[in-house]
Amino acid sequence: MSLELNQRAAQLVSQAVTEADRLRIAVCEHDEVTLLDFGVECLGGLDAGILLARVCMSDLADIRIVPGDGQLPVPQVYVTTDHPIAACLLSQYAGWKIATADYFAMGSGPMRILAQVEELQKEFDVSENGSSCIGVLEASTLPSKSAIELIRDSVETTGKIALLTAPTASIAGSVQIVARSIETALHKLHDLRFPLETIVSGAGISPLPPIAKNDLEGIGRTNDAILYGATVNLWVDCDDELIQSTGPLVPSASSESHGRTFQDLFTEADNDFYRLDPKLFSPAVVLFHNLNSGRSFGFGHRMPDLVTASFGLDF
Amino acid sequence: MSLELNQRAAQLVSQAVTEADRLRIAVCEHDEVTLLDFGVECLGGLDAGILLARVCMSDLADIRIVPGDGQLPVPQVYVTTDHPIAACLLSQYAGWKIATADYFAMGSGPMRILAQVEELQKEFDVSENGSSCIGVLEASTLPSKSAIELIRDSVETTGKIALLTAPTASIAGSVQIVARSIETALHKLHDLRFPLETIVSGAGISPLPPIAKNDLEGIGRTNDAILYGATVNLWVDCDDELIQSTGPLVPSASSESHGRTFQDLFTEADNDFYRLDPKLFSPAVVLFHNLNSGRSFGFGHRMPDLVTASFGLDF
Amino acid sequence: MSLELNQRAAQLVSQAVTEADRLRIAVCEHDEVTLLDFGVECLGGLDAGILLARVCMSDLADIRIVPGDGQLPVPQVYVTTDHPIAACLLSQYAGWKIATADYFAMGSGPMRILAQVEELQKEFDVSENGSSCIGVLEASTLPSKSAIELIRDSVETTGKIALLTAPTASIAGSVQIVARSIETALHKLHDLRFPLETIVSGAGISPLPPIAKNDLEGIGRTNDAILYGATVNLWVDCDDELIQSTGPLVPSASSESHGRTFQDLFTEADNDFYRLDPKLFSPAVVLFHNLNSGRSFGFGHRMPDLVTASFGLDF
Repeated sequence: MSLELNQRAAQLVSQAVTEADRLRIAVCEHDEVTLLDFGVECLGGLDAGILLARVCMSDLADIRIVPGDGQLPVPQVYVTTDHPIAACLLSQYAGWKIATADYFAMGSGPMRILAQVEELQKEFDVSENGSSCIGVLEASTLPSKSAIELIRDSVETTGKIALLTAPTASIAGSVQIVARSIETALHKLHDLRFPLETIVSGAGISPLPPIAKNDLEGIGRTNDAILYGATVNLWVDCDDELIQSTGPLVPSASSESHGRTFQDLFTEADNDFYRLDPKLFSPAVVLFHNLNSGRSFGFGHRMPDLVTASFGLDF
Repeated sequence: MSLELNQRAAQLVSQAVTEADRLRIAVCEHDEVTLLDFGVECLGGLDAGILLARVCMSDLADIRIVPGDGQLPVPQVYVTTDHPIAACLLSQYAGWKIATADYFAMGSGPMRILAQVEELQKEFDVSENGSSCIGVLEASTLPSKSAIELIRDSVETTGKIALLTAPTASIAGSVQIVARSIETALHKLHDLRFPLETIVSGAGISPLPPIAKNDLEGIGRTNDAILYGATVNLWVDCDDELIQSTGPLVPSASSESHGRTFQDLFTEADNDFYRLDPKLFSPAVVLFHNLNSGRSFGFGHRMPDLVTASFGLDF
Repeated sequence: MSLELNQRAAQLVSQAVTEADRLRIAVCEHDEVTLLDFGVECLGGLDAGILLARVCMSDLADIRIVPGDGQLPVPQVYVTTDHPIAACLLSQYAGWKIATADYFAMGSGPMRILAQVEELQKEFDVSENGSSCIGVLEASTLPSKSAIELIRDSVETTGKIALLTAPTASIAGSVQIVARSIETALHKLHDLRFPLETIVSGAGISPLPPIAKNDLEGIGRTNDAILYGATVNLWVDCDDELIQSTGPLVPSASSESHGRTFQDLFTEADNDFYRLDPKLFSPAVVLFHNLNSGRSFGFGHRMPDLVTASFGLDF
């Protein structure tokens, strides 16, 4: 089955261009690349965030803002997908660091398939015809000339490149990041060498953090939203033993760092992300529903008070 | 008002055919009948399940996967409709047993209007022009040659027949079955001779059970989801006395079998469905909002622990 | 940015006309004005209510029926918007009293922009080209000849006028009224002279009251739904001091009348709406998320028991 992720995402980008005013985004051309601003100079918003998240997942997921619950009065982002690998790992995972002398961004979206600069792409042996190329940048500014050149030189495409940018500390940015609940679980499972091809569908929910005053604080809140507030349901088809042995290692509680805010841990690690325990980065709760056995297993627990504190919610 | 249920459903089937890859379903032709596999050989999925449920209700309902709540961490299926009789009884109710020497399925969807083999169809005196014929089969295999012939011989249609099949123990099958919360309430009310034409709108929610390892276990879980986990709101226009006298008889708690899992009761009844108490088959909670009086009445209660146990949820 | 609210609303009205049967609404022409009946003689329904609410907000909001929560088993209406001023104040706010010798209605929708009979319109200095004119009337009857003439004489339009009517005590009317959770918060903030242009996005939820037996009881329930059951999240960009000083004055709890049902207070005020404390009319809970500081503040509290009593819910 070929889903042509870049083409799917390109259709959403066309919609975004048409509805730029309503979405409060801006569109400009730079060296024949279309740049869309989802929150750098523009306000963006909740709708822009949903559309950005859908682009990240190549429109292979249903993504909606849903109400908070009894424990957290803020809205939440709910995601369901029947294409967890394509939508989350091949497309949504922010695995491409776009780094030049004057620019840095976490790159996600289906453009990663056309770049093939990550190990992940090779592992899944996926390719596309390159008639469109759509990327999403989590960054505080629009891509610089050098960043655009880096991307253009890396991707094999005969078509138009579109790059959508939103800072962590923007409304659309926050929405698209916490739409990564399933992706975070999959990435953790990938680290644990769980056979990802056995994961057939997923549903994930995460609280939407209030927009932080800067990107560093925003990174803390969006991480805490997932680590201590997110619940993911995965439908899998594998041996129960695999779930029972791997399961306890999946939720964020599997890390010894669990129970402290991201910002607290980050400060302790001298602001060096790579000194943080990678085992921490996973949803609070992960449930496995095994089609093979009919049995279900749940791991982890939410910490709403920690989420409230991280969100700076005075209520 | 003519809603032409089969035509409405046929438009959804066209969508399904176009998006077969994304929905992970398969389409084939057999004796000029279109067969769609939503979960027999195909994986199907959550989206396929929503589409299947919408076909069952002739696209006269809004159906969505929504998050679980504090008591049950699994996703739920939420249904609202302003056409409860057409969507639920004339279309969604699985009232046609498709039984041949080599095949058995519970038949639902608007094809039942064109077959008129049930008492229910005669009671509501509904007919359609037969330019399309759309049926849904809850079965573990695609319809056999004899089953296709039985259906073709029973329905009066000048147009194309399409049959959509999903097993109970499949993702799409589970979704479409627990999308029957309102229908189950209506069917119970029909048995109680409540005047169904006074029911003007409905909203129902049911937890989505994990997929069982076989259809029998699946039947247990989907039933328990409704019997012990579903809440239905009905807007009616009738005398309060009717609600007050009938209401207590509506929820599953009106049965003496209430409080035990379906599988437990089924085993006790020597696997004979017809020895089970029909009064049990109703949502856990049913609320009536009477437009005539402005009063509201609620009956029954949920049993989340029993649902968790039935779902085999180890959490 | 010009969003042309009347044109946006007109597109939804066209949809409504096309789907009148499914929506259970009626359409007729009267003196070259299109009248749509969403619940006077027609049943209307939940879907009609959602469409009516979207027209009220000029299709600048996402509006959905969502399930109740652990405290209230009735459905709720959830609204999100990135255009709070345009969608809520310029369009949705029922600020135009359509009063003639033989008719009275609360007028809302984007037609108010073309009438400019309110102070609010002048304050925001907005105008439209008048190629369409769409209004919503909360009233127990379709507009009389004199009411239609009043509206036609007041609005500057070269295009077709469409007027959509639903009584308070109708399904569609109830839905569209409790879709006003964000609007109610904005109106209160306007009274408090909070700088509305700093409010960038909003999300609001309110329980959907059972349909009352008459409009007066309906007004009581829809008000109580907002005053004691609604939660609104606002994303703002202003000084924290402003939120901290204004915030406690925003929720309904800021009124000394808080804690009693609308009907109780209304009876005490000899059925004179203008003797009620205007400070009461605000959602139960209002949260501010300040993009400027990254801080969040919440005010007020829900009173589910009072809502249940007001709704006449015997459960």
